[in-house]
Amino acid sequence: MHVLAVDVMSGDSGPDVVIHAVYNMLAKNDDVKVILVGEKKSFSTLLSENPRVEVENASDVVPMNELPSRAIRRRHSSMRRSVEMVAEGRAHVAVSAGNTGCLLGVSHIVLRSAKGVLRPAFASFIPSGKTDGSCMLDLGANIECSAEMLHQFALMGSALVRSVKGINQPRVGLLNVGEENFKGREELRKASELLQNDKRVNFIGNIEGNDIYFGIADVVVCDGFTGNVVLKTTEGVAKMIRGIIADAFRQDWLSRLCGLAAMPVLSKLQRTMDPRRYNGACLLGLRGLVVKSHGNADVRSFEAALGYAISAVRRNINGVIDEVSLPDTPPAAADEEISSLPLAKGNIT
Amino acid sequence: MHVLAVDVMSGDSGPDVVIHAVYNMLAKNDDVKVILVGEKKSFSTLLSENPRVEVENASDVVPMNELPSRAIRRRHSSMRRSVEMVAEGRAHVAVSAGNTGCLLGVSHIVLRSAKGVLRPAFASFIPSGKTDGSCMLDLGANIECSAEMLHQFALMGSALVRSVKGINQPRVGLLNVGEENFKGREELRKASELLQNDKRVNFIGNIEGNDIYFGIADVVVCDGFTGNVVLKTTEGVAKMIRGIIADAFRQDWLSRLCGLAAMPVLSKLQRTMDPRRYNGACLLGLRGLVVKSHGNADVRSFEAALGYAISAVRRNINGVIDEVSLPDTPPAAADEEISSLPLAKGNIT
Repeated sequence: MHVLAVDVMSGDSGPDVVIHAVYNMLAKNDDVKVILVGEKKSFSTLLSENPRVEVENASDVVPMNELPSRAIRRRHSSMRRSVEMVAEGRAHVAVSAGNTGCLLGVSHIVLRSAKGVLRPAFASFIPSGKTDGSCMLDLGANIECSAEMLHQFALMGSALVRSVKGINQPRVGLLNVGEENFKGREELRKASELLQNDKRVNFIGNIEGNDIYFGIADVVVCDGFTGNVVLKTTEGVAKMIRGIIADAFRQDWLSRLCGLAAMPVLSKLQRTMDPRRYNGACLLGLRGLVVKSHGNADVRSFEAALGYAISAVRRNINGVIDEVSLPDTPPAAADEEISSLPLAKGNIT
Repeated sequence: MHVLAVDVMSGDSGPDVVIHAVYNMLAKNDDVKVILVGEKKSFSTLLSENPRVEVENASDVVPMNELPSRAIRRRHSSMRRSVEMVAEGRAHVAVSAGNTGCLLGVSHIVLRSAKGVLRPAFASFIPSGKTDGSCMLDLGANIECSAEMLHQFALMGSALVRSVKGINQPRVGLLNVGEENFKGREELRKASELLQNDKRVNFIGNIEGNDIYFGIADVVVCDGFTGNVVLKTTEGVAKMIRGIIADAFRQDWLSRLCGLAAMPVLSKLQRTMDPRRYNGACLLGLRGLVVKSHGNADVRSFEAALGYAISAVRRNINGVIDEVSLPDTPPAAADEEISSLPLAKGNIT
């Protein structure tokens, strides 16, 4: 049995969406158990009889606009309790739709960094051309990244792709504004050098924004600011194009007729392009597994994040990262005050 | 008559593409004259009789992988001569598909910054939802930007939108990873403060990647690294989706039939989503107008950049920027050595 600790309370959507998604997921996965974490009285009416569902009471909630430095002090929050379930060995993974910076801060305090890891990073698989997706990281855990952090992201991303996709030498690209290695900011130039000199990494050099979606790299490395902007831009463009397509087939009677005729293909297209299918990012580099869902996920979308969490557990993603022999840097002091972390003020939602 | 100085030699595509595009454009615009700048003997066979075409000989070419610091020393390059045509008052705008950093360096040296402008920025109109496009800047002139530069981009972008679209109080959004003003990097938080306190700017606050394409802001302000990545990501996503659509209508005989039936709408869609239509970015903040085309533009795409240049001249975009009373900062020393500019090593292509 794989056990998921699900934070029922955090996020914009409320327990209704989360619990609905959990039951949908359970119906499709026989080998999964769920611990619903939150204030039981606020969702007890939503529960139905299921031996694979357990409730862990948590009296507090981290609001979506909370500062990470304050979030970690809420010791009885559903977010913290969910992550603690993993630390205590009661769950294999925690899933939360809470504020990114807060989830990062809480996870870091509770689970601590894996050996040698400077900073954890959010990673996800993004659709790319004809391949079934590239791993992109960091997607928002670290607003500013040193060359050494970017180097580690490459190692962690490579380990992930090796395990999940069975690719022996995953191609790593560094997201930049030009292919030449003198391009971009100082830390990117330095990271490029580190990657070139590390034989464990199959570094293909700098890649640009338009390369992300063409399967040129199996791992796309960038800082969390850029990764977050890219991810959200992608969502925006896809949504705009879905709108353009829908409008095009609605313009006049001829277009509507075309639309009717093409309905089988169009419906399939809209499903393929549905951004909700790609919800879920894994926090890599901690001594335990945490998956973050979009804050405003709907049922379909939260179900995708749960699915992502299950596959992360099945693939033993964390074990994989532990195996990475990261550069011999002193591990970040895991119990340091969160306010000293760069994410304290610069986190993302 | 509006006069365009067109750099025939720079870029990846060669004189053939550029000259073909020029003749196409001239056929559609009676009030435009073109000065073709480059080594005449390399394209003389491509010329046909047209009283609105003139040739200015330039013996040198700036290669696509040239460093800006070296590009500005090529005094007889087609790039430099094109920009000089503007400085000498012989053309209203220069158009080049050359290396971005080089074009920026050369333009800066030849034309100098407009009064009070800290740094020029590349601006373009990007498609956004139901509106006819938001102005986004900087798209790659400045890899790193101070709060003061971002503040000026907001002023320049607002002036541009006011003039081009007749919007009196253009809504300005600062691209960030969250709406709250404590988000993002230090310079973004400071820029947010400057914008909030400047009554000339209709600042709507931070916007995120997914907001760009929904017409929430008339002006989207960001540093050149982020802007460049966003622009290229957009191209990549749009191209991927065009591929997905084409594939979907090709999968089996039923899909092909649907595709045939929907052909009138699909062709129109593919045209709307053609990224070549959006080629061209204007360098704002100099004492003269320069438009940059994609380096690998084809005829269709270069024609779009020429169209962009013509509309920039018709709208007197530079006059508009001159009218902006920018914050009273000392003007950048225009004839300083290019090597001291941040773009010298961190330029983009």
